[in-house]
Amino acid sequence: MTRPLSVGLAGLGTVGGGVLKLLRANADIVAARAGRPIAVTAVSARDRTRDRGFSTAGLRWYDDPVALAADPGVDVVVEVMGGSDGPALALAQATMSAGKPLVTANKALLAVRGAELAAMAEEKGVALAFEAAVAGGIPAIKAVREGLAANRISRVTGILNGTCNYILTQMRERGREFAEVLADAQKLGYAEADPSFDVDGIDAAHKLSILAALAFGRPVAFDDVYIEGIRRVSALDIAFANELGYRIKLLGIARRTEAGIETRVHPCMVPVSAPIARVDGVFNAVVAEGDFVGRVMLEGRGAGEGPTASAVVADLIDLARGRHTPVWGAAAAALSAEPSVPMSAHVGAYYLRLMVVDRPGVIADVTAVLRDLGISLESMLQRGRSPGEAVPVVLTTHETRESEMRAAMDRIAALNTVMEAPTLIRIEAG
Amino acid sequence: MTRPLSVGLAGLGTVGGGVLKLLRANADIVAARAGRPIAVTAVSARDRTRDRGFSTAGLRWYDDPVALAADPGVDVVVEVMGGSDGPALALAQATMSAGKPLVTANKALLAVRGAELAAMAEEKGVALAFEAAVAGGIPAIKAVREGLAANRISRVTGILNGTCNYILTQMRERGREFAEVLADAQKLGYAEADPSFDVDGIDAAHKLSILAALAFGRPVAFDDVYIEGIRRVSALDIAFANELGYRIKLLGIARRTEAGIETRVHPCMVPVSAPIARVDGVFNAVVAEGDFVGRVMLEGRGAGEGPTASAVVADLIDLARGRHTPVWGAAAAALSAEPSVPMSAHVGAYYLRLMVVDRPGVIADVTAVLRDLGISLESMLQRGRSPGEAVPVVLTTHETRESEMRAAMDRIAALNTVMEAPTLIRIEAG
Repeated sequence: MTRPLSVGLAGLGTVGGGVLKLLRANADIVAARAGRPIAVTAVSARDRTRDRGFSTAGLRWYDDPVALAADPGVDVVVEVMGGSDGPALALAQATMSAGKPLVTANKALLAVRGAELAAMAEEKGVALAFEAAVAGGIPAIKAVREGLAANRISRVTGILNGTCNYILTQMRERGREFAEVLADAQKLGYAEADPSFDVDGIDAAHKLSILAALAFGRPVAFDDVYIEGIRRVSALDIAFANELGYRIKLLGIARRTEAGIETRVHPCMVPVSAPIARVDGVFNAVVAEGDFVGRVMLEGRGAGEGPTASAVVADLIDLARGRHTPVWGAAAAALSAEPSVPMSAHVGAYYLRLMVVDRPGVIADVTAVLRDLGISLESMLQRGRSPGEAVPVVLTTHETRESEMRAAMDRIAALNTVMEAPTLIRIEAG
Repeated sequence: MTRPLSVGLAGLGTVGGGVLKLLRANADIVAARAGRPIAVTAVSARDRTRDRGFSTAGLRWYDDPVALAADPGVDVVVEVMGGSDGPALALAQATMSAGKPLVTANKALLAVRGAELAAMAEEKGVALAFEAAVAGGIPAIKAVREGLAANRISRVTGILNGTCNYILTQMRERGREFAEVLADAQKLGYAEADPSFDVDGIDAAHKLSILAALAFGRPVAFDDVYIEGIRRVSALDIAFANELGYRIKLLGIARRTEAGIETRVHPCMVPVSAPIARVDGVFNAVVAEGDFVGRVMLEGRGAGEGPTASAVVADLIDLARGRHTPVWGAAAAALSAEPSVPMSAHVGAYYLRLMVVDRPGVIADVTAVLRDLGISLESMLQRGRSPGEAVPVVLTTHETRESEMRAAMDRIAALNTVMEAPTLIRIEAG
């Protein structure tokens, strides 16, 4: 057996600790599958004194992650610090500049800086691996970029944020509102103290932009992702979804259309019969549709110490074996230049929920707006009667262009019988 | 771009045709992802004159597949003829002897001859790739062997035969018996004229033996797989399964136990809440459980022209990129020698359905047999009363050793109040 692959590990939080533990616990398996042992020999973290529950004895310690990259005894750097700039970016650049491969779990870094980092990896001829950046332990990157590489992908859909999926699942199962469930999730450690990265859809959008780049063979384009989080999903809408045969899920969707690539993260109504509708709690899922393979779904734990470490070490094993794949699946010169299409051009079905004054003629006013904009109704639902009071009315549409739907929303919101801003949720096949 | 990877294709049936079509239809994508074009330049099939719906003009034709392997213009051979010996084996040996990599969709060949072929691949230093051999288009081989490579796998479970899953799904949805649904499936082309390879579990066992080898890093051991097909599953048992909250699925299960590796294919009662219970129709699924990653499920089409071609070409792209993985995930010297354990040592829960004479004391006789063998009952169900006539009685057990369950079956079958051979279906967590 050849000499061990020597890993410099930057970040000793949950994920970094998991990587250390895995490489120790499964050293035999990893060595067999990598063809050589893989061992962490140097680390970088802020606090040397903190008790992390595992030993760092015998490891070279760097306060500055950039110095870790320069350690001549380090063959490969694993970055699990997080953040799209600052130390993580500096470390990534320093590592590749030194001609060393980088393994990262950092989706923000890949999404925001991925284009330039991929160019640097190609220029330096080093690997930039990031299986752990999307869907945790699910080998989604490998599946889309290698396993389905022969396909023209038409669509990739994912439940990419476990916190949001947990909150939506709890809201449905317990009939509770977003704010209450979020507070509980924070107490249980399923949501951060500042939850906006998760619940506003940004984390899912980071991951979606990476998946879209792989699926469509083009450089990552995070800024083109339309993002809408789950704060405005209400218990009432979840109840209506159930009644209509849907589940509400925060999906990331990348789709090839005639005009280009559409990428969007937003709450969706998904038919209960769709496999992705049944992925509940903290689980993640990725569905890819290719012209030859059809639809493939992968499901598993999208975060946490163990699953993320599993993905990081899978990348290290690939490196040790010399298995190399260009960052976006193809060399820069062979990447697609397909444009992104704006959300206003999206065409799909919509769920629209209004609170209206319960009196004759209200529905006629609303449907007249839709008619004037050429929007075709699929169903209308009004539950309960309270003459003169506010009652919910639900409308679902056939295929409609987003820009028209927005215009309709504005006009409907302006009707004096409509009591609050309408709620709009897009309907997806799943 | 470097020169094309030149493929010799042996077999021009459904799968071979799919490979040709894919390489033509997606030539641009394949070239980008492979880093060079991939093209079929030579073929071998029995009948030159048959109209296959695609052109073979310009391709070198070999009647003898072994001659195809010797073609100096062929870089890699794709074998999609099928069969565990004869021409497929001769071709595999000739290809690797010539120092060329082999891509095959042939699960029988891998299951039965895999140990010697893997040894030959390692000795010759050539790739032996077989993504298409298990679960069609689902990148199950790649996921288990590379994606989850960092894990100590405890269990792999799969719905590995689409024909059986289709038949069981139809039986449940339509309340019909096996023979009727099989006849319909044959008319529709979902089952072969001679269905035994599928319905007797042999095809699933071929695939399971391959998955088990990858999951546990040991040479394939097809002869050690316990195999039971779906012919004896009745509409009555499916109805009872529904009542008890189960689905009946033909699963392939490979599990690490204290005594060694257990591999088995048989009908299972799976809780309806288990994700694999909802994989219906011709779809396949693979669930892997690792110590760090937890449970990962992959689902998709397990057969057919498109999915199988997708998997074959994924292997070709790996080859073109120089991504190489040992056949069972590790070099021969690093493989595990964990023994297989016989089915008699299996421990699990059981569903037992009897047809008994409806008269007092019958249940007491049956439960006395179970008590005498130390088998603990979980539930008992008797529906309908017809004094003096045969009525079904269903028993489910707690964890029991297979050998004891078999002894109980023999004693129960010998009771004069038991009218026909008892039906035994193992209960699995999914």
